[in-house]
Amino acid sequence: MGEAYIIGAGITRFARHEDRTVESLAAEAVVQALRDAGIGWGQVQQLYAAHVKQGVAAGQRVIKQVGPSGIPVLNVENCAAAGSTAVREASLAVRAGEFDLVVVAGFEKMEPGLLSVFPAGDPRVVMGMTVLPMRFALMGAKHMHEFGTTIEQFAQISVKNHEHAVHNPIAQYPKNVSLEQVLASRIICDPITVLQCSPTSDGAAAVVICSEEFLRRSGARRAVRVVASGLTSDSDEQARNVHTLELMERASRRAYERAGVAPEDVDVAETHDCFTVSEVISYEALGLCAKGEGGRLVDERATWIGGRIPVNPSGGLLARGHPLGATGVAQICELVTQLRGEAGPRQVEGARIGLAANTGMWSCCVTLLEKAD
Amino acid sequence: MGEAYIIGAGITRFARHEDRTVESLAAEAVVQALRDAGIGWGQVQQLYAAHVKQGVAAGQRVIKQVGPSGIPVLNVENCAAAGSTAVREASLAVRAGEFDLVVVAGFEKMEPGLLSVFPAGDPRVVMGMTVLPMRFALMGAKHMHEFGTTIEQFAQISVKNHEHAVHNPIAQYPKNVSLEQVLASRIICDPITVLQCSPTSDGAAAVVICSEEFLRRSGARRAVRVVASGLTSDSDEQARNVHTLELMERASRRAYERAGVAPEDVDVAETHDCFTVSEVISYEALGLCAKGEGGRLVDERATWIGGRIPVNPSGGLLARGHPLGATGVAQICELVTQLRGEAGPRQVEGARIGLAANTGMWSCCVTLLEKAD
Repeated sequence: MGEAYIIGAGITRFARHEDRTVESLAAEAVVQALRDAGIGWGQVQQLYAAHVKQGVAAGQRVIKQVGPSGIPVLNVENCAAAGSTAVREASLAVRAGEFDLVVVAGFEKMEPGLLSVFPAGDPRVVMGMTVLPMRFALMGAKHMHEFGTTIEQFAQISVKNHEHAVHNPIAQYPKNVSLEQVLASRIICDPITVLQCSPTSDGAAAVVICSEEFLRRSGARRAVRVVASGLTSDSDEQARNVHTLELMERASRRAYERAGVAPEDVDVAETHDCFTVSEVISYEALGLCAKGEGGRLVDERATWIGGRIPVNPSGGLLARGHPLGATGVAQICELVTQLRGEAGPRQVEGARIGLAANTGMWSCCVTLLEKAD
Repeated sequence: MGEAYIIGAGITRFARHEDRTVESLAAEAVVQALRDAGIGWGQVQQLYAAHVKQGVAAGQRVIKQVGPSGIPVLNVENCAAAGSTAVREASLAVRAGEFDLVVVAGFEKMEPGLLSVFPAGDPRVVMGMTVLPMRFALMGAKHMHEFGTTIEQFAQISVKNHEHAVHNPIAQYPKNVSLEQVLASRIICDPITVLQCSPTSDGAAAVVICSEEFLRRSGARRAVRVVASGLTSDSDEQARNVHTLELMERASRRAYERAGVAPEDVDVAETHDCFTVSEVISYEALGLCAKGEGGRLVDERATWIGGRIPVNPSGGLLARGHPLGATGVAQICELVTQLRGEAGPRQVEGARIGLAANTGMWSCCVTLLEKAD
């Protein structure tokens, strides 16, 4: 099996783009990624389009915005993990020798009701867990009860990610918030306050992925290798387990095994902080600390930029924003920037191995990337 | 790059299943495919779910119906070519060495308005081509004008495919129709009459795909090799070219090249007869005859079972039925049955190489399969 390399990354500003179409956002990210890679649109062999609810053949609509092309398109949907799933599929196709050069674009324009995805009769509906904050509030309460985690430890995640976002030009909320502000903001579902929830965002992100042979031939620099990934899906574990992110645990285990990498080897991570609670528990699911120790990691400021294992230097879903299909690709864009050493004031010094954990209600994909040089 | 083999196939009856959920249809096909392969659900490493409009995380809902499992799911959408696109993705992942054993399920429960997919302002809407029959009627009229093709030649496709469907136990319309009946049936868009349009169908189809290593280890028999596939997407060629199926032409060229197979080597084909016109023109796009000669192939009865190159022995979309996401997988199920020599009264004698051409408004995937023994 061959290797797959990311040689270009592009991302739009994350915001409410009321005056833009989702196709134009996606095209902007694709064009930027191609320019970053120094690649012409004519060289691209396939587009992988990740989104959750942008309608039939959304990827095909995107390529029309970029320019004339008869390239194939694959539309990938996998809840909020669509973006990383598409990067995974694209990397596999390149590694299988099917393509030399492909582009992955994740994009979403959020509409009211976009998250009302539970079918009638679903156990989560029966349990009253019709909206996501409830699930994570329950997880948080359970974690506090079981491990002594505090409300303040959860709230610190929001402080940290907003602090990181200040240095990310595409972030939706690039402004500092204090612990007091986070705690005093409107309660959504105890212990989760509004500043501990990811916002409603529109945006797009794209990466250019090529084969080893193409990399050699093109002489492209600043390449990042897609080392391995793990994908898992729900079969109701999430409704049963309210104190672990089991899908993420299994996906990361698989990725680590495939890559021959241990959690201690990871230099920088982007993880799925749809709520502050989920970031804390993700530390444990990804093996960055032992079970129940997530709160302690916060106290040690280990996951701040400059700490032992910086998490969400981009600002994460909480402060960079969370346009569903775009999120997984955005995480990978951030890691590419970090591993290249091009993150400026939010740079994680000397980062060589990056991990992205992107999860949806029914899926999780964990990706490991490595600086190639 | 390794090889990928289909070792199991399952399909539900195609019909209007008003009393069934789409998840139960899909699960039925999956269980049948696993039983056919002699494989337990616990051995499956990933499910590829192909559908067009069954909502978010439809594949995840399907696995809950089959049985406890934490396997990953990938939802693939690619208009009416979703099914074959998913088989292609699954085969690539197996060939890349990522998986030993995966299942692909294509499924759809059609709802009113499912095909109203054109965004406002689309050139096809402007041209009044808001529904598919208009496009194919135009193509048919142009073909008649340019090459002297007759209304009767188109209508014969419906006669043939219904004749084939009589021997297919899962077909939606397993009954003979005469040329007179086809011609006299209600006109939908001249020259296309209602018996020349594929019906509204619900159903599901599934295949089990494994690696060479798994095949050897398991000792599975009756395997069919996925030789190669070609995928193309629209960037408005379809709106410009009303007398060719350009996407199919390019997809088949790519598949033939990859496989080192010529059109003359194909023993049996399943092609996308959403209308009689599209089957005739697909003969030309697939290189089964020269451009403009599709009508002649009909006159020679070359594409009947027993002819030189039988097309749609299953009854095709016209008579077997056309549940969008299921169709591409159903075509491949039929080829598996044919290449195994298990098609009974509709068997194409001595078939070794099969071709499936599955196309949507914006995508086409052509797959080449070969009997492995």
